[in-house]
Amino acid sequence: MESQDVFHHFSSDGRPHMVDVSAKPVTSRTAIAEAYIHMARATRDAIVHQAIAKGDVMKVAEIAGIMAAKRTSDLVPLCHPVPLHHVAVRIEEHAVEAEEAVFRVTAEVRTAHQTGVEMEALTAASVAALTVYDMCKKADRGMTISQVRLVFKDGGASGRYERVDAGGPADA
Amino acid sequence: MESQDVFHHFSSDGRPHMVDVSAKPVTSRTAIAEAYIHMARATRDAIVHQAIAKGDVMKVAEIAGIMAAKRTSDLVPLCHPVPLHHVAVRIEEHAVEAEEAVFRVTAEVRTAHQTGVEMEALTAASVAALTVYDMCKKADRGMTISQVRLVFKDGGASGRYERVDAGGPADA
Amino acid sequence: MESQDVFHHFSSDGRPHMVDVSAKPVTSRTAIAEAYIHMARATRDAIVHQAIAKGDVMKVAEIAGIMAAKRTSDLVPLCHPVPLHHVAVRIEEHAVEAEEAVFRVTAEVRTAHQTGVEMEALTAASVAALTVYDMCKKADRGMTISQVRLVFKDGGASGRYERVDAGGPADA
Amino acid sequence: MESQDVFHHFSSDGRPHMVDVSAKPVTSRTAIAEAYIHMARATRDAIVHQAIAKGDVMKVAEIAGIMAAKRTSDLVPLCHPVPLHHVAVRIEEHAVEAEEAVFRVTAEVRTAHQTGVEMEALTAASVAALTVYDMCKKADRGMTISQVRLVFKDGGASGRYERVDAGGPADA
Amino acid sequence: MESQDVFHHFSSDGRPHMVDVSAKPVTSRTAIAEAYIHMARATRDAIVHQAIAKGDVMKVAEIAGIMAAKRTSDLVPLCHPVPLHHVAVRIEEHAVEAEEAVFRVTAEVRTAHQTGVEMEALTAASVAALTVYDMCKKADRGMTISQVRLVFKDGGASGRYERVDAGGPADA
Amino acid sequence: MESQDVFHHFSSDGRPHMVDVSAKPVTSRTAIAEAYIHMARATRDAIVHQAIAKGDVMKVAEIAGIMAAKRTSDLVPLCHPVPLHHVAVRIEEHAVEAEEAVFRVTAEVRTAHQTGVEMEALTAASVAALTVYDMCKKADRGMTISQVRLVFKDGGASGRYERVDAGGPADA
Repeated sequence: MESQDVFHHFSSDGRPHMVDVSAKPVTSRTAIAEAYIHMARATRDAIVHQAIAKGDVMKVAEIAGIMAAKRTSDLVPLCHPVPLHHVAVRIEEHAVEAEEAVFRVTAEVRTAHQTGVEMEALTAASVAALTVYDMCKKADRGMTISQVRLVFKDGGASGRYERVDAGGPADA
Repeated sequence: MESQDVFHHFSSDGRPHMVDVSAKPVTSRTAIAEAYIHMARATRDAIVHQAIAKGDVMKVAEIAGIMAAKRTSDLVPLCHPVPLHHVAVRIEEHAVEAEEAVFRVTAEVRTAHQTGVEMEALTAASVAALTVYDMCKKADRGMTISQVRLVFKDGGASGRYERVDAGGPADA
Repeated sequence: MESQDVFHHFSSDGRPHMVDVSAKPVTSRTAIAEAYIHMARATRDAIVHQAIAKGDVMKVAEIAGIMAAKRTSDLVPLCHPVPLHHVAVRIEEHAVEAEEAVFRVTAEVRTAHQTGVEMEALTAASVAALTVYDMCKKADRGMTISQVRLVFKDGGASGRYERVDAGGPADA
Repeated sequence: MESQDVFHHFSSDGRPHMVDVSAKPVTSRTAIAEAYIHMARATRDAIVHQAIAKGDVMKVAEIAGIMAAKRTSDLVPLCHPVPLHHVAVRIEEHAVEAEEAVFRVTAEVRTAHQTGVEMEALTAASVAALTVYDMCKKADRGMTISQVRLVFKDGGASGRYERVDAGGPADA
Repeated sequence: MESQDVFHHFSSDGRPHMVDVSAKPVTSRTAIAEAYIHMARATRDAIVHQAIAKGDVMKVAEIAGIMAAKRTSDLVPLCHPVPLHHVAVRIEEHAVEAEEAVFRVTAEVRTAHQTGVEMEALTAASVAALTVYDMCKKADRGMTISQVRLVFKDGGASGRYERVDAGGPADA
Repeated sequence: MESQDVFHHFSSDGRPHMVDVSAKPVTSRTAIAEAYIHMARATRDAIVHQAIAKGDVMKVAEIAGIMAAKRTSDLVPLCHPVPLHHVAVRIEEHAVEAEEAVFRVTAEVRTAHQTGVEMEALTAASVAALTVYDMCKKADRGMTISQVRLVFKDGGASGRYERVDAGGPADA
């Protein structure tokens, strides 16, 4: 094991590395993340009335989010590639006011692996939100994506995490 | 042009499509986007003191952002593939308080093309922020990414856009 | 130019190579391709009545086709990477009979480049059709994709091509 | 499990989603797909006599098919990423007549996973056929890809599927 | 099993194929590869003194190597896609002389799978070295990458391999 | 231009960035790179006599190199994405001795762009050589890739570069 010994300290001196999960057991993992998109009321109206020229915003964005979950380890340098068992992305109206409106993206990912799928859920939510921006940006460059955050996770050594204020009013 | 005439209404009935930019002139384009990452003060201290086990958080995240800019059209379904001329990503401390801290990501992208690079800048900022989350999530699952938004753009028919409140206090 | 001379015969002895298009002028290019998906009548009914569990088949498949057009040069080894100006994919009912039904996929791609975009249009049509298969395969493994072919192209030295029998009855 | 309950109906209201396979057992899976490429007799002669300028058509296309199998989940939006155990692609002459000729592509994929590999086999066959088109298109734009279909699958809850008429005369 | 019998000789007649590993047991696998980059002494000084305009060469190259390990099966046609458990890349000074200097890249990859991860380690080392070249090429186009080779592997039927002369003086 | 001024020093403080090439003219660019693969004589014999079980080594490796050239900017973090005009890869016997043999890979890439294609040529040569390793590694784990280096470049402000000793005996 001499060669390996040489490498034993490989990652301990501050170099970036993909953490060794060899010794971790395979367990069922779920992660749910959310993101909010703030926009002008008129933009929301155009989305809801299918009046955005590029197409059905929510459909395209939901699919973009699902596909992005599968690209997570290509994007996030130290993320492990994981064979995903389930991905779903949902975009819904969250708040509609006179001048402004907010959509909420939720992304759920599941696997059975040595690592969790928090990054997959967060990436899916982010890319779905970016896709909403892309489809509406001609009309509303001021749209803002906020509260990209983990809502729930389960499985693995760190166990369950549940965000207390998730799904509440987005006040960004 | 009969065949083309048949297709002339191809995208006008609400189907998603990548907008035809054939007739647009090639012009110089710049876009700057930002994102903020809210975290526990202890997480910020670990980042600043290079105490995150996975490696130098800001370095890894800046590179992830640059590489993500190049993948934008793979992620955002209706985004045009664009040969980029310049990409830079910067992560800096934005606010440090007793319990909480905020980092700011800024991403700048430039090209000369028929389309703008807003999505590239927003994708770079988002993925850089997601990478910060990934590297610190073991210690702080509550981190939140907010205010992902366009700060500046120039070039193209729609001209210049400058966000008034960019770089100000992130109050998400 | 000695080194280049040595390489002048590089590709002429039968080795695969991406053809040198340096000397070709940049011209406007359009290509339209089609594909047909043959399926059981019951499968068609489920698609049309939004009863496929995986989601809205035609929406997902159209988006998949658009995104695939952008990946063409990653898939087809000797295809040049091309910055696309326009992509649209349309799926429509083509024939409905008592036992069988046929959908038609049409994909249109445009650019201004040294090479054409036939492969991008054919790849978009193929992947859209494969996506229809994927979404319905649980119910109908016998679905068949046929008549994947170029319908129209314009631009470049070889000029215009228009397939005489395109859009006619798919008799595969 | 409150948060999860909220998401329990996530995908049941018609939204596209990658089906949850968490509860499925890992089983050995095989899938074989085929595709036929119809071309002018002269094109077939050029292929067989290694007279296509871009290189050895069948070799390049077989490799393209193998590589495409690995990209399937990047292309087909709701396809699960699967670690493949075996991929092989074969292109052979199927019929040679005075004016026309037909090549047959067969693709075989194997894994042990919760999901099947039908889409991987179909994608491999499609991309191999598209690559034949790409390499010969200069001479023969009328080439047509037909009968892209599943020939055989085994493994998983749905068991064995064997197409009765596979490998028979391609009459598209 | 008739259809499968037909395919039994599929890959035995010299066609390229991704070897069938279905029957192999899942075992722990480690691979370590190395590469050396020879450069002018002045280039080494610029790297060490953080004077390369493009940024911190070793940090960027180490991250590039890690990310490349995850892309191996996209690049190497007959390589199996493998869910990696650990990746680390280290770049260090190997030799510094008056006119010349040599850096050594080491890459370590681990998984538990039916196939080994030698190609992932070699790809990581190669791409890290290419990244060093990219960042310094403006100053030193003569840089050479040498001794890209496997240093150590363990796991699988072929057992342990340890290169005797690894890490010794690079005399390329 | 205030916002841009703020960003003017963006990349000057040592952060990694994709260099701004906006101001550079588009010029014709060629780059040729080479790599050598050292192997046991028996391995070379197996390659030449088509006795490697995985398939025709040189054909597969040449195609892998061409496809890798197109992925360069995905792999090398600060590399600009470039629409390539020509790629060719050639693998030839370089030296055959009693115990050892050496193959030489040459890769040639051409474009017309603001940046050169040295990295594309080097990446193509590297990945072609890695593919040779992959296909023969079962028999010969000691194979070594050496002398990965730029042989020739032309175009751009830095003009022509020609390596004096290229193509000579590989003495690594």
